[in-house]
Amino acid sequence: MPKYKIIIEYDGSNYVGWQRQENGMSIQESIENSIHKLTGEKITLFGAGRTDAGVHAIGQVAHFSLKKNFYTKNIRDGLNQHLRPQPIAILKADEIEKDFHSRFSAKKRTYEYFITNRRAPLAINKNKSWAVFKKLDIKKMQFESNFFLGKNNLESFRSINCQSKSAIKTIDEIKILEQNNNIKIKVVAKSFLHSQVRIMTGTLVDIGKGKITQSIKNIIENKNRSLAGITAPACGLYLIKVDY
Amino acid sequence: MPKYKIIIEYDGSNYVGWQRQENGMSIQESIENSIHKLTGEKITLFGAGRTDAGVHAIGQVAHFSLKKNFYTKNIRDGLNQHLRPQPIAILKADEIEKDFHSRFSAKKRTYEYFITNRRAPLAINKNKSWAVFKKLDIKKMQFESNFFLGKNNLESFRSINCQSKSAIKTIDEIKILEQNNNIKIKVVAKSFLHSQVRIMTGTLVDIGKGKITQSIKNIIENKNRSLAGITAPACGLYLIKVDY
Repeated sequence: MPKYKIIIEYDGSNYVGWQRQENGMSIQESIENSIHKLTGEKITLFGAGRTDAGVHAIGQVAHFSLKKNFYTKNIRDGLNQHLRPQPIAILKADEIEKDFHSRFSAKKRTYEYFITNRRAPLAINKNKSWAVFKKLDIKKMQFESNFFLGKNNLESFRSINCQSKSAIKTIDEIKILEQNNNIKIKVVAKSFLHSQVRIMTGTLVDIGKGKITQSIKNIIENKNRSLAGITAPACGLYLIKVDY
Repeated sequence: MPKYKIIIEYDGSNYVGWQRQENGMSIQESIENSIHKLTGEKITLFGAGRTDAGVHAIGQVAHFSLKKNFYTKNIRDGLNQHLRPQPIAILKADEIEKDFHSRFSAKKRTYEYFITNRRAPLAINKNKSWAVFKKLDIKKMQFESNFFLGKNNLESFRSINCQSKSAIKTIDEIKILEQNNNIKIKVVAKSFLHSQVRIMTGTLVDIGKGKITQSIKNIIENKNRSLAGITAPACGLYLIKVDY
């Protein structure tokens, strides 16, 4: 059975998230349906990152196996045809080794969170960025963000729905860039807790507003979700790439 | 009568263009209606650039006069409130001298055209960029684009609907940048002919595809619309800023 890896871009605004659910259309189900239409085979698609409802991706990775062989070019173009007019695009398809697993073989995941820091609401980037009205202190946010680097118990930065046994995670990179009131928070790690990037972002924004005066260092050490900030809205978050 | 200047961002996808028209909702009419709701005054709004249906702006400029005085902060926030949930945002409002005219006082207009050069259709940037499937020769496009610089008769690069008496225009700057298959064509000039940037872009793309083999130099010299390329779709074009 040939195994295929696909790289996917999507606008998550009108989906229940990556993962198949009873209560609405997911990205996973939508692509599985297109694979069925293209190949006649009913398969399960395994994704690298289980993005929440409203979260976007420009480099989600998923794998699936087929009984028959297909040209990877035809998988890419055929799936895109069946996905139309949905805002989901297959950027690339490759045949991949049998032991590859999109989720478990991943070495690094890169997420980026976009904030538009201005008084006016969003027109062009509606549902594509988080509009924060109050002027943020970027330098303070940059300084505090460094405490996230390395291996930490991130109990304070996970959703109450998080099912992971351990809250210990290693953050390899975090960078906050600003240009013309557009702020980008880039976070790289092998894996993440549920809502981790959104709670990290919400906390950094509350620090930038002066609403949280404690240091990220203390918030991490206290292992208490209530010390961290709000969960930033899904619409600003993008799964950028997965490295293997 | 106090006079106000506003800077406007909009997603032009579902509008008939900047200018008030019989056949549908325009950006101009939409903002005029909001000014009426906010101030009780029926005014005419004058825009710097008459963008076509589907064209976007992140820095359109317009002016209007009122009988009563308003705080500029209240104009910005009040109009944004009345415009909601439309994808039109007032970024800034300022009181301005009596002799200012958004259109006639403009010294430079900057437009940018966005192209996504890949096989896959657009998901995230649907209606916000032009998806060109065939791989473009960027270096050739960059080389040829230089012939647009300076003062030229651009008869070949205007729509048959263009009502301008003279086709002589001066282009101050043209730059083509590429990063990860995202191409941006930046064009700066005091003023433009109807559809000029879209026909310039369409021609450069046809050159990048190898479909047009003539030089831009010849196409300009021949003053013949049929030698230039297609009119690039509206969705990739943005009015970026207007300098006074």
